[in-house]
Amino acid sequence: MKAAVYLPLEDKIQWWVEMLQGLLPGWQVVAMDQASEPESIDVAVVWRPRTGDLARFANLKAIVSIGAGIDHVLADENLPVGVPIIRTVGDDLTQRMREYVALHVLRHHRDMPRQLQAQAEADWHAIVVPVAPNRTVGVMGLGNLGAAAAQTLAGLGFATRGWSKSPKEISGVTCYSGAEGFDAFLDGCEILVNLLPLTEATRGILNAELFAKLPREACVINCARGPHLVDDDLLAALDSGQVKQATLDVFHQEPLPADHPFWSHRGITVTPHVASQIDADTGGRIIAENLRQFAETGTCPDVADAARGY
Amino acid sequence: MKAAVYLPLEDKIQWWVEMLQGLLPGWQVVAMDQASEPESIDVAVVWRPRTGDLARFANLKAIVSIGAGIDHVLADENLPVGVPIIRTVGDDLTQRMREYVALHVLRHHRDMPRQLQAQAEADWHAIVVPVAPNRTVGVMGLGNLGAAAAQTLAGLGFATRGWSKSPKEISGVTCYSGAEGFDAFLDGCEILVNLLPLTEATRGILNAELFAKLPREACVINCARGPHLVDDDLLAALDSGQVKQATLDVFHQEPLPADHPFWSHRGITVTPHVASQIDADTGGRIIAENLRQFAETGTCPDVADAARGY
Repeated sequence: MKAAVYLPLEDKIQWWVEMLQGLLPGWQVVAMDQASEPESIDVAVVWRPRTGDLARFANLKAIVSIGAGIDHVLADENLPVGVPIIRTVGDDLTQRMREYVALHVLRHHRDMPRQLQAQAEADWHAIVVPVAPNRTVGVMGLGNLGAAAAQTLAGLGFATRGWSKSPKEISGVTCYSGAEGFDAFLDGCEILVNLLPLTEATRGILNAELFAKLPREACVINCARGPHLVDDDLLAALDSGQVKQATLDVFHQEPLPADHPFWSHRGITVTPHVASQIDADTGGRIIAENLRQFAETGTCPDVADAARGY
Repeated sequence: MKAAVYLPLEDKIQWWVEMLQGLLPGWQVVAMDQASEPESIDVAVVWRPRTGDLARFANLKAIVSIGAGIDHVLADENLPVGVPIIRTVGDDLTQRMREYVALHVLRHHRDMPRQLQAQAEADWHAIVVPVAPNRTVGVMGLGNLGAAAAQTLAGLGFATRGWSKSPKEISGVTCYSGAEGFDAFLDGCEILVNLLPLTEATRGILNAELFAKLPREACVINCARGPHLVDDDLLAALDSGQVKQATLDVFHQEPLPADHPFWSHRGITVTPHVASQIDADTGGRIIAENLRQFAETGTCPDVADAARGY
């Protein structure tokens, strides 16, 4: 079997090639731009492939996304039709997302932004907040990451809800689903976490209409994809007080441009797409394991549904 | 039965008197300074009583601390000997402490202080930290609050240790105890949480000697009592880089004086004794329940050990 690797950061490509080669004895692993016989490539391992990259490989049997999302692959308008896309998910990715969601929900729950402001003014100002069981938090998207995040919040004692496209059951979490469950999910949801996959149906879902359905002074955390959020709608909702605080890990353009208003907005915490990442060692092991299984059986549990978008 | 109430904040006394009176029908509840016949008082309900306050009541059967700690009662040099002291602990107190410890351990784990600094500079600077199972955190003090905090940290995925005076067993937590276990507990402990009771043995325990036993760039969280910490030793350890960050909820003097160097130190997060508090409604219910049980049976599960100090 022969695999071609592409990532936008050129200095990482060779590193990934060598790591995967070490983990896949018997395979041939090359940098995509050095694949001299495109028809010999069986598998492409990619992060943010360029449009047309993958169409060059006439005999492609699988595309591996170096990450849990496949939106960056589907963004290729010339993507070969019908080639299975394998997501890369793993315990570390899930663990890191649990940490991020727990941290930022707790930060908003205990109003750390205002507490830090009080410290800056040497102001002994005790902020009294409800105890977590009296605080309603909601997670949109109940895939691997969303379900783990919701369970973590329930474990911390929060009154936890989840919403997903199709019905789910998660112990300790009140689950809503579909268009018919959306308003009930948002009603009373004081801290909202977005972990939806990015699809045409979810693009721009964090918008003025959604914010208006949350209770006043709600907090919003987006750790899925930048295009889920309508930036101007968030700024307006912060200005009006409908949204009190937001934490954003993902943006329409990354890195977030230095002149973007999010950087300096008092109501917004910016983190540079660090909520969850697969470190390369772990990611390499997961990818190698998935590829071995795929080569043997023709499938693996992490094959995504391209039509569905995740 | 007759109860006398004292808290340092005068405008709260009458509120507490009325609340407890409502919860204890058949009792007589008065403000301590209005107890005209001191020998008729059976029970004193106090927060930070003044020296000599309690010695006035010759027939006192119990002292209730409006809080989990009893150090503020033991600080009375004329404290009547042999009168049981009843602590006030409850689910809310434990829940709030779990939230605080989880929040601040996660903040240090994910290096939020530096991340916020990067945001202030519009700097897209991803800070890569180990995943929680590769991060060792330790809780000193494994009473109600400490044990719950340690279990919460273990539930979040951290490699969690605990240390207590006498041996304890907590599922998912590596427990150390006594003087002989202290150094092993500190060795490699990257984030240290103090939840010890304040006694003569633990006063000043957060000192230069302890900091030197932690790994370099450790983080320290004190949510027990101010006098556990030697302030100058912390400042020196921050200056040398031995300690990277500290979060302090309690102080030698509270409110923390406006000119104290902790307020403006870049390595220190100050919170105004809010880690855990019993809201008055919950506290009132717990106190009334304890007093009813004490009046009936002569004891209750929350009687502290004054000789031990907690």
